[in-house]
Amino acid sequence: MSKYVYLFKEGDASMRNLLGGKGANLAEMTNIGLPVPYGFTVTTEACTRYYEDGKTIAPEIEEEIYKALQVAEEQAGKKFGDPENPFLVSVRSGARASMPGMMDTILNLGLNDVSVEGMAKLTDNPRFAYDSYRRFIQMFSDVVMEIDKDLFHNALEAAKAKKGTTQDTDLTAEDLKELVVVFKNIYKEAIGKDFPQDPKVQLMEAIKAVFRSWDNPRAIYYRRMNDIPSSWGTAVNVQSMVFGNMGNDCGTGVAFTRNPATGENKIYGEYLMNAQGEDVVAGIRTPHPLSDMQESMPEIHKQFTEIADRLEKHYRDMQDLEFTIERGKLFILQTRNGKRTAQAAVKIAVDLVDEGMLSEEEAVLKVEPKQLDSLLHPTFDATALKNAEHIATGLPASPGAGAGKLYFTASEAADAGRRGEKVILLRDETTPEDIEGMDFAQAILTARGGMTSHAAVVARGMGRAAVVGCPAVHLNEAKKEVRIGDKLYKQGDTISVDGSTGKVYDGVIPTVEASVSGDFARLMGWADAARRLQVRTNADTPRDTKQAVHFGAEGIGLCRTEHMFFEADRVKAMREMILSDSAEQRSAALDKILPFQQKDFEEMFEALEGRPMTVRYLDPPLHEFLPVKSMTAEIEAIAKELGTTVEAINEKIDELHEFNPMMGHRGCRLSVTYPEIAKMQTRAVLQAALNVRKEKGYDIVPEIMIPLVGTKAELKFVKNAVVETAEKVFEEYGEKIDYHVGTMIEIPRATVTADEIAEEADFFSFGTNDLTQMTFGFSRDDAGKFLNSYYDNRILEFDPFARLDFDGVGKLVKMAAKLGRTTKPELKLGICGEHGGDPATIEFCHNIGLNYVSCSPFRVPVARLAAAHAAIKEKQAK
Amino acid sequence: MSKYVYLFKEGDASMRNLLGGKGANLAEMTNIGLPVPYGFTVTTEACTRYYEDGKTIAPEIEEEIYKALQVAEEQAGKKFGDPENPFLVSVRSGARASMPGMMDTILNLGLNDVSVEGMAKLTDNPRFAYDSYRRFIQMFSDVVMEIDKDLFHNALEAAKAKKGTTQDTDLTAEDLKELVVVFKNIYKEAIGKDFPQDPKVQLMEAIKAVFRSWDNPRAIYYRRMNDIPSSWGTAVNVQSMVFGNMGNDCGTGVAFTRNPATGENKIYGEYLMNAQGEDVVAGIRTPHPLSDMQESMPEIHKQFTEIADRLEKHYRDMQDLEFTIERGKLFILQTRNGKRTAQAAVKIAVDLVDEGMLSEEEAVLKVEPKQLDSLLHPTFDATALKNAEHIATGLPASPGAGAGKLYFTASEAADAGRRGEKVILLRDETTPEDIEGMDFAQAILTARGGMTSHAAVVARGMGRAAVVGCPAVHLNEAKKEVRIGDKLYKQGDTISVDGSTGKVYDGVIPTVEASVSGDFARLMGWADAARRLQVRTNADTPRDTKQAVHFGAEGIGLCRTEHMFFEADRVKAMREMILSDSAEQRSAALDKILPFQQKDFEEMFEALEGRPMTVRYLDPPLHEFLPVKSMTAEIEAIAKELGTTVEAINEKIDELHEFNPMMGHRGCRLSVTYPEIAKMQTRAVLQAALNVRKEKGYDIVPEIMIPLVGTKAELKFVKNAVVETAEKVFEEYGEKIDYHVGTMIEIPRATVTADEIAEEADFFSFGTNDLTQMTFGFSRDDAGKFLNSYYDNRILEFDPFARLDFDGVGKLVKMAAKLGRTTKPELKLGICGEHGGDPATIEFCHNIGLNYVSCSPFRVPVARLAAAHAAIKEKQAK
Repeated sequence: MSKYVYLFKEGDASMRNLLGGKGANLAEMTNIGLPVPYGFTVTTEACTRYYEDGKTIAPEIEEEIYKALQVAEEQAGKKFGDPENPFLVSVRSGARASMPGMMDTILNLGLNDVSVEGMAKLTDNPRFAYDSYRRFIQMFSDVVMEIDKDLFHNALEAAKAKKGTTQDTDLTAEDLKELVVVFKNIYKEAIGKDFPQDPKVQLMEAIKAVFRSWDNPRAIYYRRMNDIPSSWGTAVNVQSMVFGNMGNDCGTGVAFTRNPATGENKIYGEYLMNAQGEDVVAGIRTPHPLSDMQESMPEIHKQFTEIADRLEKHYRDMQDLEFTIERGKLFILQTRNGKRTAQAAVKIAVDLVDEGMLSEEEAVLKVEPKQLDSLLHPTFDATALKNAEHIATGLPASPGAGAGKLYFTASEAADAGRRGEKVILLRDETTPEDIEGMDFAQAILTARGGMTSHAAVVARGMGRAAVVGCPAVHLNEAKKEVRIGDKLYKQGDTISVDGSTGKVYDGVIPTVEASVSGDFARLMGWADAARRLQVRTNADTPRDTKQAVHFGAEGIGLCRTEHMFFEADRVKAMREMILSDSAEQRSAALDKILPFQQKDFEEMFEALEGRPMTVRYLDPPLHEFLPVKSMTAEIEAIAKELGTTVEAINEKIDELHEFNPMMGHRGCRLSVTYPEIAKMQTRAVLQAALNVRKEKGYDIVPEIMIPLVGTKAELKFVKNAVVETAEKVFEEYGEKIDYHVGTMIEIPRATVTADEIAEEADFFSFGTNDLTQMTFGFSRDDAGKFLNSYYDNRILEFDPFARLDFDGVGKLVKMAAKLGRTTKPELKLGICGEHGGDPATIEFCHNIGLNYVSCSPFRVPVARLAAAHAAIKEKQAK
Repeated sequence: MSKYVYLFKEGDASMRNLLGGKGANLAEMTNIGLPVPYGFTVTTEACTRYYEDGKTIAPEIEEEIYKALQVAEEQAGKKFGDPENPFLVSVRSGARASMPGMMDTILNLGLNDVSVEGMAKLTDNPRFAYDSYRRFIQMFSDVVMEIDKDLFHNALEAAKAKKGTTQDTDLTAEDLKELVVVFKNIYKEAIGKDFPQDPKVQLMEAIKAVFRSWDNPRAIYYRRMNDIPSSWGTAVNVQSMVFGNMGNDCGTGVAFTRNPATGENKIYGEYLMNAQGEDVVAGIRTPHPLSDMQESMPEIHKQFTEIADRLEKHYRDMQDLEFTIERGKLFILQTRNGKRTAQAAVKIAVDLVDEGMLSEEEAVLKVEPKQLDSLLHPTFDATALKNAEHIATGLPASPGAGAGKLYFTASEAADAGRRGEKVILLRDETTPEDIEGMDFAQAILTARGGMTSHAAVVARGMGRAAVVGCPAVHLNEAKKEVRIGDKLYKQGDTISVDGSTGKVYDGVIPTVEASVSGDFARLMGWADAARRLQVRTNADTPRDTKQAVHFGAEGIGLCRTEHMFFEADRVKAMREMILSDSAEQRSAALDKILPFQQKDFEEMFEALEGRPMTVRYLDPPLHEFLPVKSMTAEIEAIAKELGTTVEAINEKIDELHEFNPMMGHRGCRLSVTYPEIAKMQTRAVLQAALNVRKEKGYDIVPEIMIPLVGTKAELKFVKNAVVETAEKVFEEYGEKIDYHVGTMIEIPRATVTADEIAEEADFFSFGTNDLTQMTFGFSRDDAGKFLNSYYDNRILEFDPFARLDFDGVGKLVKMAAKLGRTTKPELKLGICGEHGGDPATIEFCHNIGLNYVSCSPFRVPVARLAAAHAAIKEKQAK
């Protein structure tokens, strides 16, 4: 039979899963002899049982709770509801992982019409006792019983008005006693029952409220954002009350053993005398720095700093402590590993190694990979930012800060960028044709679009700062001006954009570049030594490539060639190709693209300095290269440019229309119908590789990746076109170069026939974006309309496009990896979907034995660290 | 080491896979002592080697061929190229399955400038010899070397013109000798080499041509239509020539041992004296019935009929024989199981049982399931049809014949149908709203659309005759008239439509109903006794249900409820629901649909008389219930009808727009966002079941099927709404009814998590249409644009929407079946995609242990027979 309730003295720090983080630490502290108020923890398993039992607490659990309560009473030497010396408790939630959004703390539980008198006597302060009681009723009604809190607020206001005051403090004990009666009536009105006088009833209701709060929308949202499964549940901590507000020998405070903002190794805390914990947090009174205590209460200060030091050494990490001083006696209410900024995390981890407290690998585990993101982007100079007023706010779509001159079209932005200007690209929304302008911009600002709009997705991929969906922006493209809020800006006027906060500022705020040296470099060095997975990047331009290499990328895992086709001079030839009627016409049009594409690849190979590059062949459906039919002006312009008719273009647009373009004529299907495309791209890749090898001496082995393959025959067909072209190129050049041909595994059918496909493939790269779409049958462009219902109803607990769905999509990935290696034990395996930069997914990839992950340049350090975490955890588990 | 060449005397009938059908039978006949000309077979494995070796014949195979040739020469007592007594051979292809589209026969191979003289002497007929030679050159050049045959035709015409005649027969031996010179020059011109004089070279070239023809477009197309894998390859038969055209004691003919049209047990054949086989086929001379031979050559006739009888008994099946009489001696050139009509197939199978030749199970295997289709639909009375002229031709989209009065809208067609009129629904194209009118029609005729258009797909599903894409039809709906070709028809005028041929006739041609009694019933009885798989039907109307039950359906495997929503009176309420802003409004609109839907189900339960029914809940995306934006008149009408504005409707249409509706907001996703829908449908199903049980006493256990489930949580969520509603209904009725809740497995993710999903499911039904779309990543609406390239390039060898893709989609189905049964060993498993009526797929379903297949009503007998085939084959293999 399970045990559902543990006294603090029965637990320890290792029981985090069962007792929650808070409970496990209270138990640990109790057992190492620190002054912790008595209490017990109701386990996370009790929470799970609560849900399984249809949201009720089973009688045997209730009984265990009462037994534990009795022990706690004995330890405290007080009794629940005692009119002389009442036992009062706090009730707090405590999940395995720290989780904002859960239930607030309930203090002073156990107060009732009788014990309030006991408290008054004991503290010799009836006003304090009745104020505590009315606060308890208010808190219990709001948090536990969900009664509208305005009712209590209004009654309080009325009491003050009656008294002719606006200050709570003007209310006397008698006034508060009357207010308690009013509050109890409000309670009875709302619930239909008297306010519970039995502390046991109060306690059971409070525990149930904590369990319920595990499933409130805020908590669900937080779990989804942080990959916390709902099956974990929360524990409940019931702890004897101590009072920091009984007089001037009382106090309360919080402290970090090191500075949580900078990481500096110096205790950092604040306290208030004669106050409860909530007073410190609420900010009504200004707390004192902890150092002041050295003078006012040197003994307590000494005791506390010793405890803090002991706890840091005990947990071998920076601690975040809560303490209360009750009549000159120090109590520790909580300790936990302290939250810290990314900068502090890195410094603390490195310092702890230098102090001999952690091994290098342990230090690596102390920094959350996701945190690194904020260290890698330029930020606004903090001093300058203090004086800046923001003029608008949008969605913080892609982190980083940028300042520069406004341009309203991608081509003008690109031109200005080429002239060396710092540029902000401002558009209503961006399209694939804007790629080049976006690449030249310091930051991108759009009036419309959400977090998954084109601008947002592409900017994140490029690591360019972006704010999207900014309603204060009113662009008049024709006039080359924009109204932001009340102010009118012309082309060339300056603004600053913070993609991490969504804020837009007037004028130029100086930026500070991210540094990847010092502590950061040391930590990443340890990470690199520990990891097994290689980390590559997804990059389509030399600039991104250099950025990624700077961040430690070991090559390119995904070079999307279609971005290269959208640039102005090429899209014309691309359209010519699409409008062709014969293979000859198509080849002629492709011949025009060849020199551009070859030059692109040459620049990429040069930027990589010999590192490997996987080139994915043309993927999107051809209609993406043509305007939609309603864009009549564009169509006319194209007709003129290409010397054809508007009708011919409209006819082609109709012909290319697809009901479900995601599952249409794209990927390798393009090269099956038009092998000329694969041939041209092969020529471009191999000629570029041969040229750069000759010029620079790099040992290049190009990796050609055929997308959207579902059958072995499909891959073989396109591969034949590649090999045939390669033979021709080698003959023309009079020399050969090694190259690999592989495929993206992104069609469910490919995963189950991976053994066959591996016969034709030198490598697999899992394209988990499309694989997720097709495995779930979710169109990413449309699923937004119903996914919120899925999250709200706990049908999905996370976004499968952000974190790989291990149970479904992941199962297919694992199967494909296994089948592929059955055919070719040395088959190289990687992942290049957006999941490639997600730490949880990276751990999964490590565990199933992939060779590398590939992610956007700014995710590279995150991935390196996550890969190290996976390897170290695996080692520790052995 | 493999043996690639078999003399006829080395083989037997069991070696069909290796020797091909023709070769195996020639070997068998040789070994049972029948007069078969000497020869040998080059195996199908040699063909496979040919392709593996880059389209060359390996030296060791060549050597084997020459060795076999030498033996054949010795047997024949002749020698290749002998000027006295030349050995001449025929070369014929022969695959495992009979395959039109393969290479034509080559006769007289071995003729050259020398042997032609030998032949002239031997036959004492130089004209015959030179005519044979020029024919051989012509045939070899065309069939083997692919030289333009017009070149030879023109040369022949020129020779005749020079002679001043138009008849081949006016050309003398000398003329033909000259023509041979001309022909050889044409050959040299085209190929760049002399016409090969070495018979061995001729032979090797001919064999290679047979191998090549395995891969010509016609053969590929035929294989795809008939599920023949390309890996089988073809064999080549090389056989000593015998001549039926050496004089009046010579002849040739073909015969069936029973009548191939009716199945009558009477030998049926034709022959020609002094002729070659091709003359019988070409139809230049009218052949005599075989019975005539009884008088002209009684000995030969007796010998032949004895052989025919012996072969039928030997093969225990009706035989199709080719024979030649050379100078009074009978040779059998070929025997094979004869092709026959469906009617004949059934009669012959039943007769062979009655004659003691076959067991009942063997007889079941003698009828191809696909053949049955033609027996099940009404046909036009043959005599009446002879005198009818067709007025137009379209695509034969759905088999069967129908005649009646023309109506041009679905609602008028339905009204007329309700009045008892026989109706033809003629439309430009049909939409989902036309369902009811289509159901009431005898046949459907549309001006536009292809074989996969709405009209075609729905008509096939209903078993209604349909001709689509008929360009001669010009409808003027406003005027209620149509021009078909030159003739104008008003509403109410009569036409007849043959969905099996695509032909349209003026006036009413009487139809003959299909009979499912007599021999057919006996055969199906044997099939039912043999099969293990149950056969259900996909039906949405009482009419279809009755039809399916008549055809032996054991229940409904898929009742699509959305068809019930498209009918005129319901679509209004449906639109009200879609335009609702709140759950209350939605519920109110759904309440209006409830009585209709409940009545539908009551009628269905009554039609089923206690058989089970699986009801699939609403599946299509909601935008299908609204017009597209360009249909302004419809939108105005709807706005008026619903008392809302055009803007409101347009806004909703925009809101519901999806980029990839296949993967959008549909299936169970509708019930996740709007649980009211599932609740209303549950009420309708259960109330109907309770009412019909009460009234009729049927023991009904409704099966509720939740579509498009990808996760267990999704199913559980919708199931909760079902169970909750069921409890309410049972309370209101004061009685309960058993019901099952299951799901359609049609999302790849569901297949890999089927063990989890089975925890919440009473049954799985594989929706292989959508599963195929998502597993391949093919949108069925769009894939037509590129699938032809896939077939042409042998990337796909069959249509995965017609036959289940066993290697990919099938693997997922198998995995899901296994996982599901791991959780629940008794889990009921079925298939309800269009594949459910495909014989090859049915065999697959049998082998992986499904409980039932479900298919359209007219496919039910096909499925029963196919299921029996699968069971009998399995038993035989043990």
